[in-house]
Amino acid sequence: MQVSIACTDHNLKRGNGDHSKQSTTSPNVVNQARAKFRTVAIIARSFGSFTPRHISLKESTGKHTGMKYRNLGKSGLRVSCLGLEQLMTIAYESGVNLFDTAEVYAGGRWVRSSLVITTKLYWGGKAETERGLSRKHIIEGLKGSLQRLQMEYVDVVFANRPDSNTPMEEIVRAMTYVINQGMVMYWGTSRWTAMEIMEAYSVARQFNLIPPVCEQAEYHLFQREKVEVQLPELYHKIGVGAMTWSPLACGIITGKYENGIPEASRASMKSYQWLKEKIVSEDGRKQQAKLKELNHIAEKLGCTLPQLAVAWCLRNEGVSSVLLGTSNPDQLTENLGAIQILPKMTSHVVSDIDHILGNRPCTKKDYRS
Amino acid sequence: MQVSIACTDHNLKRGNGDHSKQSTTSPNVVNQARAKFRTVAIIARSFGSFTPRHISLKESTGKHTGMKYRNLGKSGLRVSCLGLEQLMTIAYESGVNLFDTAEVYAGGRWVRSSLVITTKLYWGGKAETERGLSRKHIIEGLKGSLQRLQMEYVDVVFANRPDSNTPMEEIVRAMTYVINQGMVMYWGTSRWTAMEIMEAYSVARQFNLIPPVCEQAEYHLFQREKVEVQLPELYHKIGVGAMTWSPLACGIITGKYENGIPEASRASMKSYQWLKEKIVSEDGRKQQAKLKELNHIAEKLGCTLPQLAVAWCLRNEGVSSVLLGTSNPDQLTENLGAIQILPKMTSHVVSDIDHILGNRPCTKKDYRS
Amino acid sequence: MQVSIACTDHNLKRGNGDHSKQSTTSPNVVNQARAKFRTVAIIARSFGSFTPRHISLKESTGKHTGMKYRNLGKSGLRVSCLGLEQLMTIAYESGVNLFDTAEVYAGGRWVRSSLVITTKLYWGGKAETERGLSRKHIIEGLKGSLQRLQMEYVDVVFANRPDSNTPMEEIVRAMTYVINQGMVMYWGTSRWTAMEIMEAYSVARQFNLIPPVCEQAEYHLFQREKVEVQLPELYHKIGVGAMTWSPLACGIITGKYENGIPEASRASMKSYQWLKEKIVSEDGRKQQAKLKELNHIAEKLGCTLPQLAVAWCLRNEGVSSVLLGTSNPDQLTENLGAIQILPKMTSHVVSDIDHILGNRPCTKKDYRS
Amino acid sequence: MQVSIACTDHNLKRGNGDHSKQSTTSPNVVNQARAKFRTVAIIARSFGSFTPRHISLKESTGKHTGMKYRNLGKSGLRVSCLGLEQLMTIAYESGVNLFDTAEVYAGGRWVRSSLVITTKLYWGGKAETERGLSRKHIIEGLKGSLQRLQMEYVDVVFANRPDSNTPMEEIVRAMTYVINQGMVMYWGTSRWTAMEIMEAYSVARQFNLIPPVCEQAEYHLFQREKVEVQLPELYHKIGVGAMTWSPLACGIITGKYENGIPEASRASMKSYQWLKEKIVSEDGRKQQAKLKELNHIAEKLGCTLPQLAVAWCLRNEGVSSVLLGTSNPDQLTENLGAIQILPKMTSHVVSDIDHILGNRPCTKKDYRS
Repeated sequence: MQVSIACTDHNLKRGNGDHSKQSTTSPNVVNQARAKFRTVAIIARSFGSFTPRHISLKESTGKHTGMKYRNLGKSGLRVSCLGLEQLMTIAYESGVNLFDTAEVYAGGRWVRSSLVITTKLYWGGKAETERGLSRKHIIEGLKGSLQRLQMEYVDVVFANRPDSNTPMEEIVRAMTYVINQGMVMYWGTSRWTAMEIMEAYSVARQFNLIPPVCEQAEYHLFQREKVEVQLPELYHKIGVGAMTWSPLACGIITGKYENGIPEASRASMKSYQWLKEKIVSEDGRKQQAKLKELNHIAEKLGCTLPQLAVAWCLRNEGVSSVLLGTSNPDQLTENLGAIQILPKMTSHVVSDIDHILGNRPCTKKDYRS
Repeated sequence: MQVSIACTDHNLKRGNGDHSKQSTTSPNVVNQARAKFRTVAIIARSFGSFTPRHISLKESTGKHTGMKYRNLGKSGLRVSCLGLEQLMTIAYESGVNLFDTAEVYAGGRWVRSSLVITTKLYWGGKAETERGLSRKHIIEGLKGSLQRLQMEYVDVVFANRPDSNTPMEEIVRAMTYVINQGMVMYWGTSRWTAMEIMEAYSVARQFNLIPPVCEQAEYHLFQREKVEVQLPELYHKIGVGAMTWSPLACGIITGKYENGIPEASRASMKSYQWLKEKIVSEDGRKQQAKLKELNHIAEKLGCTLPQLAVAWCLRNEGVSSVLLGTSNPDQLTENLGAIQILPKMTSHVVSDIDHILGNRPCTKKDYRS
Repeated sequence: MQVSIACTDHNLKRGNGDHSKQSTTSPNVVNQARAKFRTVAIIARSFGSFTPRHISLKESTGKHTGMKYRNLGKSGLRVSCLGLEQLMTIAYESGVNLFDTAEVYAGGRWVRSSLVITTKLYWGGKAETERGLSRKHIIEGLKGSLQRLQMEYVDVVFANRPDSNTPMEEIVRAMTYVINQGMVMYWGTSRWTAMEIMEAYSVARQFNLIPPVCEQAEYHLFQREKVEVQLPELYHKIGVGAMTWSPLACGIITGKYENGIPEASRASMKSYQWLKEKIVSEDGRKQQAKLKELNHIAEKLGCTLPQLAVAWCLRNEGVSSVLLGTSNPDQLTENLGAIQILPKMTSHVVSDIDHILGNRPCTKKDYRS
Repeated sequence: MQVSIACTDHNLKRGNGDHSKQSTTSPNVVNQARAKFRTVAIIARSFGSFTPRHISLKESTGKHTGMKYRNLGKSGLRVSCLGLEQLMTIAYESGVNLFDTAEVYAGGRWVRSSLVITTKLYWGGKAETERGLSRKHIIEGLKGSLQRLQMEYVDVVFANRPDSNTPMEEIVRAMTYVINQGMVMYWGTSRWTAMEIMEAYSVARQFNLIPPVCEQAEYHLFQREKVEVQLPELYHKIGVGAMTWSPLACGIITGKYENGIPEASRASMKSYQWLKEKIVSEDGRKQQAKLKELNHIAEKLGCTLPQLAVAWCLRNEGVSSVLLGTSNPDQLTENLGAIQILPKMTSHVVSDIDHILGNRPCTKKDYRS
């Protein structure tokens, strides 16, 4: 299970207050986990209160923070353009379970209503019945998430990777079922091709079921094609939006690999052997050279390289939300600062970055002309 | 009510541990029944841990046991290729009720999600409203099963025998209803003809309802036509799979009737008069002669005749699961050993068996040429 | 092309009169061909005029002739229970083309309205585009038939043999198209399995297209399974009826092969080698023995063996029409006489015949009990 | 208007005979144009008679020629794997109009039924109403084609380039309309993206309209991605097939640009300035180097470079038909010779070619692993 939270600043103040009332009952481990969570909450809160300008604005902006709120695809769900990934998972895996989610939930429904909580259905687990996107696994998997989270519903459930062994009709019917049962508000996909998403849409239309609203995709300076070319077409045609992950390319864009693989970095871990290989490859070294150049731009804009990288993702208005993967409070604060850099991402700056990267994909329009 | 369980090995160990905690509260009869169940659980557990090879494999294999996991028809539900039939029914009829099913369930949701539990709707009961597959009986019958099982849902409900007195539209609408209510994940048929299943499918397509995923059919060395000729065409056309029962032909294939009807055998019981007649008939004696020859093959492969018979069923990859009917722990262990014999079912061996049986059905292809 | 005609006696007199008016304009070859046709027409006419008894009768009877009129499947089209096959084809292949069909048609719409003309789409021709039941071939094939026949429409077009290389949706859409264009009134199948017909029906229901009304199948004393077991279920479920051909089993039931293969018989021809082999096989000799016994029954009833065989087909009320294949006027007259024998096909006689044949198929009902 | 013909050899002889009868009435220009056409017809005829091997073969082969016949996508329409493009257009633009198409048609319906004639709807014309794929333009455009061709229908109409200014629903409704009017048998797309085709399919399923059967795409040694990666997925999901054009890459693969741009070549023409630039670019020179290497392979196989290039396209069994663009009789004869080379395209040869080209696209499977 992986749970993502996209914070909104609406009512967070009151929500946080409720949290503290309950903290006396929490054991030690939980306190540590909550510490992380609280950091986030405090940061989020410090952004200031949100002032809606006009109800029909496609994008609206937090008053003091510059945080942007965008619709998830063509759905009506409004999400902050920066979201948190894995934080709750990390807490959960440290032993926090009921408590932690109760904390989020304890504030009552009005807190819940200002939070967008998503979950993802992974498959390929040990149990045979948890392999794939069968109706059973979709329903059981989501029930399991809700039980662990002690929540009545999540906002979006993502089907991670397509499953060619389950008929698309079964998948879409099951997603429609969990929505109609109130277990989830919307459903999305993760790592699906545009054509697979179109197939899901097509089946939904054929049988009058509910189509997906969003695709989760990798998106950063060195991986652009899908989010910049394919997903916009999907958005235009069927309203499916983009939520992106890995804005720092698994840490590559932090600059920490500039001079090789430091000890204690992710790439030095055994299970990240593939990352190490990528970094030390010829392509990897070219990337590091480009990052140096990008660092100059960041300096000129008065921000760090990661902030530039996140702001660069955010400049793409087709992206509903950029998921931040860090669990380190300092890094999180740094990343969130990207919001302030966003106004500086002028077409001139973006064009300079494109020039350095040399990987701006041809959009369909270019291609045809 | 008859309940079938297709075990998966995921977490069965933990599940079993939970069982023992509860055993202090169980009465004597229950203990006997549970003894049986525990045997099964222990056997199941001994299969070892499952190692996925490739995520898109149609069939996957348990590491130490060779147990195969297959999709149920074209649905996404993965079932072990051997399933247990009647065990829970036997326990239930011995007085076990709440307890026995709670035992399966006790481990919590994560255990449930790794078990595939099916139930069957029998009809023709005394009460007039229990006669047939009316909407009322489908809903009431399934509710009754769930209540007796103390389960929130079963995975597959089978409609036993078609009911020509209820319009197919009513049957398919009721099945769609119980699925949409969360009482069951999929529905299937049992002892329906291919044409009746096509009719159900046709009605489902006409009214945008949910079609069946599976037919339960008799299948053993002496009964091949339906599973080998008709159901493959159904699978190809509409994705309906096959789950089979009676792999030992009501005990005929155990060899125990080789020299007549022993006392204390099923065929010596009054209610099995028809079985006795079948065995002592001319056809019955011819079958016994063939079984002697098959026994030679079994000896060469280093297995028993029942193991050969079960492995022979499993060699048919169109069969999602073979239900084992025995409730005798020793026989069950023996039957489960068929998995080890499966790799020895080479085309040469299968061809030898066909030669002895002399009943290989013409497939459609043969028929047309 | 093969065209079948099911005569009705309604207005045939007047129709025939019109024919003779035009005969002065016909060339010699045509006259010969017409001679055959006229023979049929005269015989048909001699049956006397048809007297409808009650409009809702499932089966009605010609007053003097005993000719039965039955609905084609559950459609509203009423056809004589005996139909002619190949006659027009033979004429056409002897060089008759425009003229012969004009003769049928010349009488005007009122004659046409009393005739049921069917055609069959064969495929597997030399031209690649004529291979299979593509939309192109269905439309072109039927247009070709109509042009050759100089008819505005035929009553039923049969798709001969299923075509697994063309999607069923394409076949059913094309059939619906030719019906909606007025080129044909109904469509049927020929040599399709029950399951293939169900699939066509299912597709028709899913996409709101027109389902088939009739299957053409082989049916005679030695081939019973499909027409007596499978098609009744289809009729019951989806209203598809049966039109049968080869009531004399390619001449086997005439008795002429009783003492081997006479010269000048069909089985002595090179292209009928398979028929010869069938006749001289062990099964073939058993059949001849049974035919001798059946001949005794025929004698008792005061008819010939072929008449008995045709009447036996007609006794099956699930058969809408039995197509007679002969083009020999005397044999045709003989075969048509079966109508008079029909009332003598009592359950006692039918049971005697079953006893001799020993091939009465288990109906589903028997099987289940 | 551009018309493509996929010849079948059935009855072409007779068709050709009819042509000569009419030639006395044709003006000079027409004779020249017909000369071209006749060449084709003669070549086509020389393919010899077709011998069906097995009725259910997915691909069938002409007896003497090795010409392959394949289904157009998953439709039932069978087309020769080589088709002619532009020939009729050239004739038409030389002043031939009624006559030329009548010539094809003159043999009567039986000739028409053995020819597959396609047309393409271009848009972007001067008249405002001819801009785009509006219902008005689809219907008027097709009517115009039929009138110019003096044909009752064409087999496939292709919508050239998608039109983002017309709602997809309108396009699919209009295509369904012209099919239901009998003006065309199937519809396809040309230069549409996979996603646009999925959208058309999706709309067809939503509103029970007729989906497209085929996409026309550029495909040659230097352009592989779409036909080898995207269209196979489309075929698998929704049955849409591929018809390809430009097998010689606008003449680049003939080898004639090996030493620069010869006078009188297409690339020396003003309107082909873009082609010239492509050839003399760095990429263009790399391509010429690769062509030299490929020429060695061609020599080993005993064929010319263009023959190798066409055979290479044909080796892809996902391609229903490769359209040949040449109008030069000698070149056409040469290109048609590719059929004889096809059996020599072993996996070894194909792998050698891949090695030289260095552009084998990753299939989805590769991508995911």
